[in-house]
Amino acid sequence: MGNAAAMLDTYPVDLGGVDKQALARCIEECFTCSQACTACADACLSEEHVADLVKCVRGNLDCADICDTTGRVLSRHTGYDANLTRAVLEACAMACRSCGDECERHAGMHEHCRVCAEACRRCEQACRELLATMG
Amino acid sequence: MGNAAAMLDTYPVDLGGVDKQALARCIEECFTCSQACTACADACLSEEHVADLVKCVRGNLDCADICDTTGRVLSRHTGYDANLTRAVLEACAMACRSCGDECERHAGMHEHCRVCAEACRRCEQACRELLATMG
Amino acid sequence: MGNAAAMLDTYPVDLGGVDKQALARCIEECFTCSQACTACADACLSEEHVADLVKCVRGNLDCADICDTTGRVLSRHTGYDANLTRAVLEACAMACRSCGDECERHAGMHEHCRVCAEACRRCEQACRELLATMG
Amino acid sequence: MGNAAAMLDTYPVDLGGVDKQALARCIEECFTCSQACTACADACLSEEHVADLVKCVRGNLDCADICDTTGRVLSRHTGYDANLTRAVLEACAMACRSCGDECERHAGMHEHCRVCAEACRRCEQACRELLATMG
Repeated sequence: MGNAAAMLDTYPVDLGGVDKQALARCIEECFTCSQACTACADACLSEEHVADLVKCVRGNLDCADICDTTGRVLSRHTGYDANLTRAVLEACAMACRSCGDECERHAGMHEHCRVCAEACRRCEQACRELLATMG
Repeated sequence: MGNAAAMLDTYPVDLGGVDKQALARCIEECFTCSQACTACADACLSEEHVADLVKCVRGNLDCADICDTTGRVLSRHTGYDANLTRAVLEACAMACRSCGDECERHAGMHEHCRVCAEACRRCEQACRELLATMG
Repeated sequence: MGNAAAMLDTYPVDLGGVDKQALARCIEECFTCSQACTACADACLSEEHVADLVKCVRGNLDCADICDTTGRVLSRHTGYDANLTRAVLEACAMACRSCGDECERHAGMHEHCRVCAEACRRCEQACRELLATMG
Repeated sequence: MGNAAAMLDTYPVDLGGVDKQALARCIEECFTCSQACTACADACLSEEHVADLVKCVRGNLDCADICDTTGRVLSRHTGYDANLTRAVLEACAMACRSCGDECERHAGMHEHCRVCAEACRRCEQACRELLATMG
């Protein structure tokens, strides 16, 4: 069990109908993806052919920021707002899809893009699975 | 002219059909709102009746994070992704609406909620106006 | 092996004399601590006696932001600046110490403070160990 | 008067001996600098000779994150911790100095680096002036 699940278990008030496993997984994947995208943007900057990777860097930076904010919003339960949570999850899934697609294009050439694309895919899936549990 | 507009004018490549004035204003309002929400959350914590303000604090924290990320995404133009920009702007407008509504409920009692609500209203409007220019 | 270590292994250029294990661990602990502090701040807001926890909330919010930024700075290696890295690690260790101390005061009463204090202690230690390897 | 000063005036408790003008100015410069650095990193990515600017991009990204976190920490006054505030301000001044120096190297060639360098200089100065008032 990751630490996000451990923190979730300590929340002092009933969490309502939330799927705790899907929520904890999504929080973990958001922070993992944010870190991977930050590192991938930087690794791209160190590549000899950085000019071919500028769209990848930009996608990484957006995805890092959006995943970070999504992980934070999901870590809060007080005064829960389902509509806002849904809008944030939709934006996050879209960012992960877009960044994962771009990274995948360079995955054969650059190992950092391959590992980052996998983090994006897992995070997108975790967002979509959490959305599915929200009805 | 704020500094976001000054930076926008230095972008080395054509920005396409973007409405530069609406974009610059939205960037400025995002960062102003993010700061106001961070400060309002903290001011709520110092109020004697903080227990009545916990929903406001939570809304402030979400809104601060979402506005910050939105301001960052809007500050990038390389490899522009209109769909992702739209999803982020929608989430931001929703966060500002929700936080502005909650702050407004306390505006008669707490000056920080009044000033913060105004920042939320301006930011929501700036997001919606930018969305309108995007077609 | 966590994903930060996996990303570190993909960096395309030699990392110089850096202790990769200490670096990867510190990155992981920064993001884990940032999430724990975000969740602890929110859990405090849901406690009946939130008024007794406002200093804890504030410390959590600072620590979450500082750990997040530290994890990002440490995830970049291009154009490495040892002095800046050191200053950021010192600030992060200080934030974790302060937040860990405050959370520990409430650990007997609130499980979220207990789990969060542990994350702060691990992160502070990881920062200090990384600083020690930097000479 | 900027909005950070307006929010500062609404804080419900006495701020002690803090120099409100220096504090408000520093908060404003932190967010302005964070935005400028985010935009400069992106503008560098769109330059034909991006390979010459990778150190500038990396410095921009660090400076954006550190200024953002500093602006947030300075926006909170509840349970004020002078030592932590000082450590964060020192790290921020250092990031601004380093990023301003690197941007200045490209200021003759790239207008975004010139405008960003000025934001870094103003933010560094605002951090140092606030530090000076803290004794």
